[in-house]
Amino acid sequence: MDTKTAIEQFYALQSKLSAYEHAMSIIYYDGATTAPRATAPNRGHALGILSEEAYKLSTGEEMMSLLEYLNAHKDELSEKDARSVHLASKDLEEMKKIPMEEYIAYQELMVEADDVWHRAKEESNFELFRPVLEKIFDTTRRFAAYCAPEKEPYNYCLGKFEDGLTMEKCDEFFSALKSKIVPLIKRIGEAEQVDDSCIKGEFDDATQQSFSYELMKLMGIDLDRCGLGTTEHPFTTSIGSHHDVRITTNYDNTNIASSMFSVIHEGGHALYDMNSRDEYAYTNLDGGVSMGIHESQSRFYENLLGRSYDFVTCLFPKMKECFPGKFDSYTAMDVYKAINLVTPSLIRTEADEVTYCLHVMIRYELEKRVVGGTLEVKDLPQEWNRLYKEYLGVDVPDDKHGVLQDSHWSGGGIGYFPSYALGSAYGAHLLHKMKETVDVEKCLREGDFAPINEWNREHIWQYGCLKAPGDLLREALGEEFDPSYYTDYLEEKYSKIYSL
Amino acid sequence: MDTKTAIEQFYALQSKLSAYEHAMSIIYYDGATTAPRATAPNRGHALGILSEEAYKLSTGEEMMSLLEYLNAHKDELSEKDARSVHLASKDLEEMKKIPMEEYIAYQELMVEADDVWHRAKEESNFELFRPVLEKIFDTTRRFAAYCAPEKEPYNYCLGKFEDGLTMEKCDEFFSALKSKIVPLIKRIGEAEQVDDSCIKGEFDDATQQSFSYELMKLMGIDLDRCGLGTTEHPFTTSIGSHHDVRITTNYDNTNIASSMFSVIHEGGHALYDMNSRDEYAYTNLDGGVSMGIHESQSRFYENLLGRSYDFVTCLFPKMKECFPGKFDSYTAMDVYKAINLVTPSLIRTEADEVTYCLHVMIRYELEKRVVGGTLEVKDLPQEWNRLYKEYLGVDVPDDKHGVLQDSHWSGGGIGYFPSYALGSAYGAHLLHKMKETVDVEKCLREGDFAPINEWNREHIWQYGCLKAPGDLLREALGEEFDPSYYTDYLEEKYSKIYSL
Repeated sequence: MDTKTAIEQFYALQSKLSAYEHAMSIIYYDGATTAPRATAPNRGHALGILSEEAYKLSTGEEMMSLLEYLNAHKDELSEKDARSVHLASKDLEEMKKIPMEEYIAYQELMVEADDVWHRAKEESNFELFRPVLEKIFDTTRRFAAYCAPEKEPYNYCLGKFEDGLTMEKCDEFFSALKSKIVPLIKRIGEAEQVDDSCIKGEFDDATQQSFSYELMKLMGIDLDRCGLGTTEHPFTTSIGSHHDVRITTNYDNTNIASSMFSVIHEGGHALYDMNSRDEYAYTNLDGGVSMGIHESQSRFYENLLGRSYDFVTCLFPKMKECFPGKFDSYTAMDVYKAINLVTPSLIRTEADEVTYCLHVMIRYELEKRVVGGTLEVKDLPQEWNRLYKEYLGVDVPDDKHGVLQDSHWSGGGIGYFPSYALGSAYGAHLLHKMKETVDVEKCLREGDFAPINEWNREHIWQYGCLKAPGDLLREALGEEFDPSYYTDYLEEKYSKIYSL
Repeated sequence: MDTKTAIEQFYALQSKLSAYEHAMSIIYYDGATTAPRATAPNRGHALGILSEEAYKLSTGEEMMSLLEYLNAHKDELSEKDARSVHLASKDLEEMKKIPMEEYIAYQELMVEADDVWHRAKEESNFELFRPVLEKIFDTTRRFAAYCAPEKEPYNYCLGKFEDGLTMEKCDEFFSALKSKIVPLIKRIGEAEQVDDSCIKGEFDDATQQSFSYELMKLMGIDLDRCGLGTTEHPFTTSIGSHHDVRITTNYDNTNIASSMFSVIHEGGHALYDMNSRDEYAYTNLDGGVSMGIHESQSRFYENLLGRSYDFVTCLFPKMKECFPGKFDSYTAMDVYKAINLVTPSLIRTEADEVTYCLHVMIRYELEKRVVGGTLEVKDLPQEWNRLYKEYLGVDVPDDKHGVLQDSHWSGGGIGYFPSYALGSAYGAHLLHKMKETVDVEKCLREGDFAPINEWNREHIWQYGCLKAPGDLLREALGEEFDPSYYTDYLEEKYSKIYSL
């Protein structure tokens, strides 16, 4: 064997793995969007087998000997090849520590959990979801012990979504946010309130769907490679490579902003996923590098751009066109204020930018305690409701609007939530940097996303997983990440809106 | 090894294979229904790999040695196990004859062809489709030569869709039909014509979709396990097992009957597929046994039941409810006559029962000549148009309404079309038999499909692929199949409608 042959075989194996990922992603996507409701066990059967096959490929003899050879010849590898080998080796080390039966059982549990969570949320019945959620937390702890026995289990969870993230860093980051956000919320609460009636009313699904496509086009998303579906909880997924990406949304027929900002948020994820270098397709370098960076893109489009006055001035005529008559007695400024109404609320995905991080902190606190063993799953609803009262001052009426609202836990995403807050803060710093060379306000006013997208492509998207998230961010920013850009941004924007 | 272990391993291998089929079916279904338009090459990548893996499983060492062992211990096998071993052995023998690279290239060609055909049809541009279609016919001939060098290639094609079917049998069958149908069409042409304006008008997609679900429910299709999608060309597919089946339709906004009878037709396929015995799931005994039997079910529901006066009387109030105002000035008899209007036309799927078989015969003639080497693909449009003029007296205005109308060739289904005519005739004989014990007219008038479905389940559906199609049919009928039940049925029904 020589290095050239080894690397070719290594990429051929990855290409094969990508076909399994393609299959599993589309089975999952179909399950969430269009599959008939009693078909989850049938999907579980196929996913169990396909994930077993993928597991065997990832951890089998061939992969092991190729990685062994390639790691021994590291100095002959290009930057791209070295990174791909590094990531695969890291995955292999981890996978090898998880017994195959447990890995497969976990994949099957995910299918069951998705189905049970949907029903539990529909019925607002936490007890229905509890046994499955207990299994998920148990498995999470067990996998953490297999993979990183030297770490606190929850640190292992956090690191899975953002390389190097720990409870210590989170605590520090969240306390910095809290010290700025809590007083800001207090001042806003005492100020004259904003009227958001212009975004309320009746908005049927079909028209909202057409409007969603308009939004996607405006954002510069290639509709020939990005689909839009409807699901209980919006998400983005790549199908096998960056050549096919799907986003989903959920239409609220009484509030146009709900789906609108889901579409822009998921559209941000999609732009990131779709713009990896073509040579990364069917390799482990394809797509986003971490959830923190991913959320920095989604929340960048959703909030920093989507909820800006400049963007609203450009979008307003389109809104009038799509929903004839609905906005006749309003101005772009009314819409701008309405979509930036700050009010403590129940649902994270519909929360305003200012209170949003408190929703995340509540989930972080709860996960930390359940994974750490100081809180039982059965007590989650009660603790959830208590923290919502303490942090946000709201009473949770039922579990549907409380502990059952998010799909993350049912998808095994324990440790994911902090990425949202972190991503928001990354985004604010990135915007600051972008503005040095791009006239962002002008682009938004004119509905010309090309220069903005080009900056993101150049500094973030094209790299896929080539660079570690910390390096990627530092190089894009030209300095160390600083969360104060985020708190400053919030302070400035909302002081104006609320004349503080 | 003992037989019990061997059979267990054999079913475990089939279960694994079913996961690959699940993946490939859902990738195909998604591609036809919801995937963004430029994603076909990405699907091709995954399908190429997955079909290669499935090929290796079907033809690999493990399968070969299991089948060798099981074939040597045939007398110890149950009826079910023996049949499953027989079918797998037959497939293996055939697969072994096709070089793997060619098999995989063919799978990739199918993805490309589906995409190209869609575009070619949209643009009514046969030249765009021609190179791909040439490859498909070439591959068909080549595979026929590999698998059955002793047979005429087109006989091999016919036998793939209906065990034992040959050009000789087709010629005989079609000439029997023709001798009855052509004079019948002539008499109808000379009679007073039927007015079909009641099924014409404006019917939007969303309302037609709701109506489609009503039809499916009425037919006794379990909507928890059967989905409905929208595609250019309606089809039915199982996703991995009979526990998840999808049908599709295509809405014509000017004619309610178009999608309505597609839904009933595909619903008939779905009922057959969904009602295999549960123990057959994830084995090669699951689902329908041949396309002839399959079409006997689909065309049974579509025509023998769906286009009957009794069914229309039951459906008419639902039509009025779904489409308020549209049918106020009409009666059930008007609808019955309109959906049974006999008129030579361009589109097979929308053809009436009487002229339908002529559409099939044209395709049969053309396939026979192309596969036999006496007609070139490039000359297909011209020959298609000539035969439509000769058989049906109609002028084909463009290829979209001519040679490009069906998806079968782009899906590799050469030899499929005769199943439609054969299935129609099987269905008429089956109905005759069913009426001995079931009051079909009463069931239809009352919208109670249960006794009808129960008869089909008992005599056809439950068996999946347990019995060879010829045996299945003979046992269900209690005698040899006789096409004269079909021609008699047409004669009687249309003599009444047209007062001949």
